[in-house]
Amino acid sequence: MSTSTRDRLATATAELMRRQGYSATTVKQITVAAHAPMGSLYHHFPEGKPQLAAQALRVSGAAYIQLLPLLMDPYDDLREAVPAAFAAAAEQIETSGWINMCPVGTVAGEIADSEPGLREVTAGIIGSWVEVGSDYFVRRGLSPVDARDLIFAILSALEGAFVLCRVLRSAEPLHAAGRAMATRVEAVVAASRG
Amino acid sequence: MSTSTRDRLATATAELMRRQGYSATTVKQITVAAHAPMGSLYHHFPEGKPQLAAQALRVSGAAYIQLLPLLMDPYDDLREAVPAAFAAAAEQIETSGWINMCPVGTVAGEIADSEPGLREVTAGIIGSWVEVGSDYFVRRGLSPVDARDLIFAILSALEGAFVLCRVLRSAEPLHAAGRAMATRVEAVVAASRG
Repeated sequence: MSTSTRDRLATATAELMRRQGYSATTVKQITVAAHAPMGSLYHHFPEGKPQLAAQALRVSGAAYIQLLPLLMDPYDDLREAVPAAFAAAAEQIETSGWINMCPVGTVAGEIADSEPGLREVTAGIIGSWVEVGSDYFVRRGLSPVDARDLIFAILSALEGAFVLCRVLRSAEPLHAAGRAMATRVEAVVAASRG
Repeated sequence: MSTSTRDRLATATAELMRRQGYSATTVKQITVAAHAPMGSLYHHFPEGKPQLAAQALRVSGAAYIQLLPLLMDPYDDLREAVPAAFAAAAEQIETSGWINMCPVGTVAGEIADSEPGLREVTAGIIGSWVEVGSDYFVRRGLSPVDARDLIFAILSALEGAFVLCRVLRSAEPLHAAGRAMATRVEAVVAASRG
């Protein structure tokens, strides 16, 4: 029961932040969305909103990076896998009505200069994405240097394209970013076989 | 005098939003930063914060896209110009202490689902970036289709890499994104000469 209230509070925080960001989200909104009394929020998260946000970002960030192997595993060739992941993201953001696809990126950008503690939390999450992504590409045959370079480029392109798609109500940025990354993967694979 | 107060209010709003986002920025902070009385804020911007934010985003967004030709004009070859622009951005974000390089992207992501009016304003700004960028690449020899595709990929990679760099306090994402875009430009130029 107690664990479940804690989880509901974190889930509600993640969902509110995904839609409206960190600053616009209030503890009042969180307790209403989580069907939890204010006292239980401060029981589970004595430091309040920053602590709740950190937990919400960690949980949703860990789930988010699992999408990467899920989207790419079906393809034997990395040169197909990477553009397929962008195409899947493009289809999903369009059919969902342009929701915020990434639970961490937008909030990370919002608070990077104004909330040092939370900035460090998001740095840890994105650092773990880079590790998970690098390991994945190494398992799929790239050198550690190429793998790290590729995951940084892919995460940059994805995060930026998500914002442009949401703002423009168009999947065109994700498709263009996917084509650019496909070219990059082709060059990296060709060089590694060269 | 009256024009100058209006400009000061918009500049102060842009600077506050760049550092802390839209929601965290209050009209009180804006009047303090602009050395303007509250009455003059509502005289110049009767609709208050959303109207001020729209004006601030329009002014700084128009200035921002002018950086693109400024950074790329010195290079005769587009295949050098594009990675040079990313390298310049990487150097600048590092030497500035990881400030938010883009006055529009982070705010656009923060408000895309929660402030419909402001979302439309940012869509207009980013749409104009796409036009200016496409025209630029057409003038430099690309087909309109390739030019539009490339500017979407570049803007996506830049916006995403800015967030990752600020969060990680590292220029590595911008360098990796720049290398990926360089590969893309090489392929597009090769195909257009093919």
